[in-house]
Parts: sequence; C-alpha cells; structure tokens
Amino acid sequence: MYQAMTDKQLIKSVPDGSILTPKGFQCGGVHAGLRYTKLDLGMIVSEIPASCAAVYTTSHFQAAPLVVTQQSIAKENVLRAIVVNSACANACTGEQGYQDALKMRSLAAAKMGIPEHQVAVASTGVIGEFMQMEKIESGIENLVIGKSADNAEYFQTAILTTDTVMKSCCYSARIDGITVSIGGAAKGSGMIHPNMATMLGFLTTDANISSEHLTAALKDVTNITFNQITVDGDTSTNDMVLVMANGAAGNQPLDPNHPEWGIFVDLLKESSASLAKQIAKDGEGATKLIEISVSGAMSEEEARVVGKQIAGSNLVKTAVYGADANWGRIIGAIGQSGASINPNTVDISLGEITMLKNSTPVAFDEDHAREYLMNDKVEIFVDLHLGEGKGMAWGCDLSYDYVKINASYRT
Amino acid sequence: MYQAMTDKQLIKSVPDGSILTPKGFQCGGVHAGLRYTKLDLGMIVSEIPASCAAVYTTSHFQAAPLVVTQQSIAKENVLRAIVVNSACANACTGEQGYQDALKMRSLAAAKMGIPEHQVAVASTGVIGEFMQMEKIESGIENLVIGKSADNAEYFQTAILTTDTVMKSCCYSARIDGITVSIGGAAKGSGMIHPNMATMLGFLTTDANISSEHLTAALKDVTNITFNQITVDGDTSTNDMVLVMANGAAGNQPLDPNHPEWGIFVDLLKESSASLAKQIAKDGEGATKLIEISVSGAMSEEEARVVGKQIAGSNLVKTAVYGADANWGRIIGAIGQSGASINPNTVDISLGEITMLKNSTPVAFDEDHAREYLMNDKVEIFVDLHLGEGKGMAWGCDLSYDYVKINASYRT
Repeated sequence: MYQAMTDKQLIKSVPDGSILTPKGFQCGGVHAGLRYTKLDLGMIVSEIPASCAAVYTTSHFQAAPLVVTQQSIAKENVLRAIVVNSACANACTGEQGYQDALKMRSLAAAKMGIPEHQVAVASTGVIGEFMQMEKIESGIENLVIGKSADNAEYFQTAILTTDTVMKSCCYSARIDGITVSIGGAAKGSGMIHPNMATMLGFLTTDANISSEHLTAALKDVTNITFNQITVDGDTSTNDMVLVMANGAAGNQPLDPNHPEWGIFVDLLKESSASLAKQIAKDGEGATKLIEISVSGAMSEEEARVVGKQIAGSNLVKTAVYGADANWGRIIGAIGQSGASINPNTVDISLGEITMLKNSTPVAFDEDHAREYLMNDKVEIFVDLHLGEGKGMAWGCDLSYDYVKINASYRT
Repeated sequence: MYQAMTDKQLIKSVPDGSILTPKGFQCGGVHAGLRYTKLDLGMIVSEIPASCAAVYTTSHFQAAPLVVTQQSIAKENVLRAIVVNSACANACTGEQGYQDALKMRSLAAAKMGIPEHQVAVASTGVIGEFMQMEKIESGIENLVIGKSADNAEYFQTAILTTDTVMKSCCYSARIDGITVSIGGAAKGSGMIHPNMATMLGFLTTDANISSEHLTAALKDVTNITFNQITVDGDTSTNDMVLVMANGAAGNQPLDPNHPEWGIFVDLLKESSASLAKQIAKDGEGATKLIEISVSGAMSEEEARVVGKQIAGSNLVKTAVYGADANWGRIIGAIGQSGASINPNTVDISLGEITMLKNSTPVAFDEDHAREYLMNDKVEIFVDLHLGEGKGMAWGCDLSYDYVKINASYRT
C-alpha cells in the first residue's frame, strides 16, 4: 500500500507551507474579469531557470494551452513561469484558441522579461468558448508577483473554478543533509459550472534535479496518486500536473543512483497524494472521501485497476452516500475490473469491519457498519489473496448535489 | 448504424406478441413467497427439445445459476426449460449456492418430466444471501404452465425485481416462405433494491437452427445490442441472455449459407435491440432514453466503444436530465474513449441540431436545444470522419431518483 512505501519519519509536513516554501519561487493572482468577482488569473515564477516535468490529459482533445506548454518544454526542458487562467478552458477552440494560448504565453514572458519558451500555459473552465484576450492582457499587466503568504493564497484562489476549497500542500525532507521542499497547489472536481475542464496541479521544489529524472519520477508518482482519483469517470481536455525544480536548495543532483533518491520520490509522492486526496474529497457534491486499499493482486497495476474500479462505481458511491454497507456492489466492481481474480479468495472490509472472507459473507453488525459509513472518510480494504500487488485509489460519494450541480443549466 | 442494417420491410413487429408467439412454447409464473406479494418464480418450457445459445456476464463472480446453466448446455446443447427466480441472486453463496442451483434445476426437471441437463437456471436479486429452498420447492410445485396471454404476463412479471415495467417483444419474418417468430422477455436496471444482480433476457423462437449457429448469431447480436446499453457502468454477477430455438416453424435448417440467414440474424437483432432499449429506458431513476449513433469510426467496434463511453458518462447523463445542451461533455467522453480520433474532424448533433462541425463550435438556438432535450427520447449523433465504422449505444439520464434509489438502506 502507498503509505507503507513512505517512511513517514523522513518526510515532514510543513505547516502553512505552500508553493512558495521551496526557495526561489514567487507567485500571484489577480481578477482579470473573466469571472464576476473571483480572482481568475495567476502565475508562478522561479527566480532562476528550473528543471521541469509535466503530465497531460490522455484525452484526444488536448486543449490549446497544453499544446503550447508541450512546445515550451520541448525546446529546452527549462521553465521560469507558469501562467494560468480559470473560467475558460480554451479547449475545442481550433486555430484561434492556439493563437490565444501563444499570445498568453508571450504576454507572460514579456512581463517577466524571460524567453517565451520558458513559460508554461494552463487554462481551466468552459469548453468551446474563446478566450477574452483583452482581459487576459490587462490581467497579466496588473498581476503582482511576490513571496508572501497572501501571494500564495491569491494564486491558489485564481486557479479555482467553483471548487469549494483551496487545495495546497507542502512537505520537506533532508537530502545531502540539506532541507529540500516541495510545495503544491491544485484545482479540481468542484465543477459546479458544467463544461469545466477539470484538474490542474502545480508543484514547486527547490531540489536540484534534471528535467529528465524529474519527468521519470513524476510519471511514476502520477500513476499512483493523481491517476488514482476519480469523481465521475470523466476525463477532461485540460488535465495537467506540472513541476518546476529550481535547484535552490543546493543538494547534489538527484538521480536514481543518489543514495537519497528514494526520499525525494517519496517526497514527491506525499505531495501529489495530498493534492489528489484534496481533489477527491472536494468532488462535486461529495460529502465523504472514499479511500480504497487493495492488496494480494497479481501486480501493483492490477491492484490499482481494482481500486479505481471500486472508486468509480456509481453503485458503491451511492451506497456510501446512503451509509449502506452494501458489499455486493464492491464485489460487482471487482468482478468487472478486468484484473485477475480468484472468485473464491476475496476479503472485503469497511474500516475494521470484515464483510467478506474467502468470498463468503461474514455476519456483521449493520448498525455499527452504518455508523462507520457516516464518517467523512470511509476506508475500503480488499485482499484478493492472489499475489503481492498493492495499490490505492480515492474517490468520493455520489449525492443528490452531484446531480443538482451537473443538471443545472450552464447559464 | 444498426437500423440501416435491418431491412425493416422484412422484419415485422407482432402486436401483442410474446415469448409464446413462436410455436411450441409454454410458460408461467407464480408467487413462491421470496417476495412479499409479487410473482417471483417463472418457467419457460419448449414442448420439444430446443437448440439453445446463451451469453453470460463477464464478471469474475458468476453466480451459481450461471454455472449450472453452462453445465446443462455443455452436455447436449439442448434445452427444454428455463426456470427463473427473482428476489435472490444466489451469487457469492459458495458451495451451498451451487447445490441450491442444482436442486432448483432438478425440481424443475422432475416437474416437467425431462432430463436435468435440459433445464437452464437463472436468478436475480440480492447478492450474498442464500436461497430459501423450501419456497423454491413449493413454488415450482404450484407453477402452472400454459399458452395464454396471462401465462406470458405471469412469467414476465415473475422475473422482475423492482423494474417499473415489463419488458417483452415479438418479431417475425418469412424464411423459406414460412413465418418464423422470435419472442422475448427481459428484466433489468430498475434496481430499486440495492445489491440486485441485474439483467436477464430470454428469447424463444420456432426457427429451425442448430445450437452452434444460434450461438454464433447470438454473440454477434449481443455485441451490438445488449452489450451496448449502460445504466450506471456496473456489471452484474448474474447477467445472462438465453435463446431457445425449437424448430417448430419447419423452415430449412438455418446456417450462414442459407439464403435467408441474414433475415434471421436481423430478426434476432431486432428482438434483442428492442429488449435492450426497454431496459435502458427503465434504468434506475431514468426519465429519458438516450440513443447514440456514431459513424465515421475506424471500425464498428470503435464506433460502439465511443457510443458506449458517451452513454456511460455521468456528465452527459446529468446534462440530458437537466436538458442542458452541453456538447463539451460529449467531447470529453469521446476524447477518453480510447478509440482512434482525429481531434479536428468531429461533428456532434443533438437530434437535428448541429453543435460541432469539424470540431468547431456551431452557433445554435439554446432554447430550441433545450426543448429537444425535454423529449423522453434523446438522440445524439457523432461523426468522427475517419472511416466507415458505425455503431449505436443506449443509455438513460442520471436523475435525483438514481441517487435516491441507490442510497436508500437495503432493509
């Protein structure tokens, strides 16, 4: 299981930490007018050129800002800034959308006096509408970049659409005897305004690491964190996670041969898992975070597949919403997951309450189970008793408010 | 598209037809007491040995009755009867459940005076509870089998769980100058009582066809009909579609070389599609049937994958419920379907209202679109402009009642 892989004593949570805790980063957020009152445009800047790594939505319809960001990174594998707007996803907007994303990049580069290809662009909001470029332009002009806690909060707010809470995290560890930090900010899944394109995650770190190794670490970590959350099974056109590593901490360059490589990967994992869980918990209409731990699978990948199938089951999600200890629905999800299963060796527990042992029902106290399911975090444990594969997934319950939020008319 | 493959002039709907319309079939239903008042046990009998074909859930946790049915068919590829109960799925019930399914088969065989291996068994209801065998026994004893319209209705009712309507169909065609009929009965997707194991479909036909060719035809037809519906993406442990063909019509044996083989396959297709659509329309909490037609895909399979992804999207389903012409969500579903897509050549229409042409938004009248989405059948057309592949899928909207039904406590 994920937690077991991290030696918690080596990874410290930094209270009140943010994307500005790692050395050498600044940020800000402003109201550009894309939305009525909320901040809607933000930027993170590294004071020195940073290594970088990104993962993008697997949707065939990648939005224009993702295309531009990939072009930026492809040039030199170095970033100095990330500029982000909410309200408009700039997706399915054709050549005009692409030109708008390029323009947004060049405006941000000009403001900071840095090369265009060192700027990444991200957008989140309604699909199929064009960017209001005059607002983007004046927004970037008015943006104030700084290092205070307020600046971090402005950025965290500017990237939200209708999320109900800001999502941020900060963790540190000692590497080469030096404190290395990762800070994160994310938005996602509180898509009260339909048509939103969903998840964005930004991580800053002062670790000294090349883009090549950072990219490899981010891919591995994303597979077991961001890719293991689901709110409604729908993949957006704008999903992106982006890390900038500026090396300001001064550690020896990190690569898989560095004796503390594992600590850095765990640090990245802890940060990503924290943001991922915050997104799942703030899922549309959600009242509870559901955490699924699968063990005994043929491989880690199969364990994750089973976990995500359970997390994505509407029937499991509604049962958790209704506090109904309906393990038959968990069996249903496991059975259709496509992973290797021995139908006679499955154990299922809700929290500490065992419901199924060797695929045979175990009598349990329904009231006790119902009470457990009233918690705002519900843990489901599945042991397939087939192999050594372990994995986790996170989701949320499916409530009336999910339907309300998503059935409401766009205007 | 599916409709285009059937020459409607050759396939006739039989008004008031049922599983008893094909020659040589009888059936009945009875209240065995597994449920409070509703009929809960039924049987279809062929007066003469029938060829047969069946398709089963792909869940790893196949329920005991499915195991027993496969054993029956494996022996001789001949069936005389299908015995079905609702209320209890007899799934995840281990060795006891298997013995109970065998017992149910032998009781039905004894009643009809036929070999055990010519009886198929099906169950639908709560997962993880044991069968009340004394009730099954007295139920089978009290069952009255006959040929009247009442008998058909008793059977159609007995297999329902908490579906809101009976599902049946009957179509006929001329083969070798003789009228050949297929009748069908199904239950599914009105799973008001959680933990239900979901879809059962039974087809009778008086066509003369071997089990081998019937099986091949059923597999092909199932892939484009029953397998193309989705209510909530959850696959049950008890899904089964079963056909008995007793040859009483007297046509020449049907095989792919028979000049009218295509007509028989279309007859089977029309029957299966009718039941499949009735199930989708009666999905839990559904207020509307959603029919998706995909064209221009690289293959028929990819067209079906795209269609089913759209049908299964919670975001599309809630938008249809809310009458919101939110085509961005359709794009989202297409983009993540895994099928080959050119992101620049996609057309999307809702009914006759074009919303996207060559992946570029087309201005449309929102009020007109909203009005269209108020219909109880909503058609979504997608053209990928990549190849010749066409396919369809069916689903339903996602309403407050879906959550209500599935969040309610089991007892």
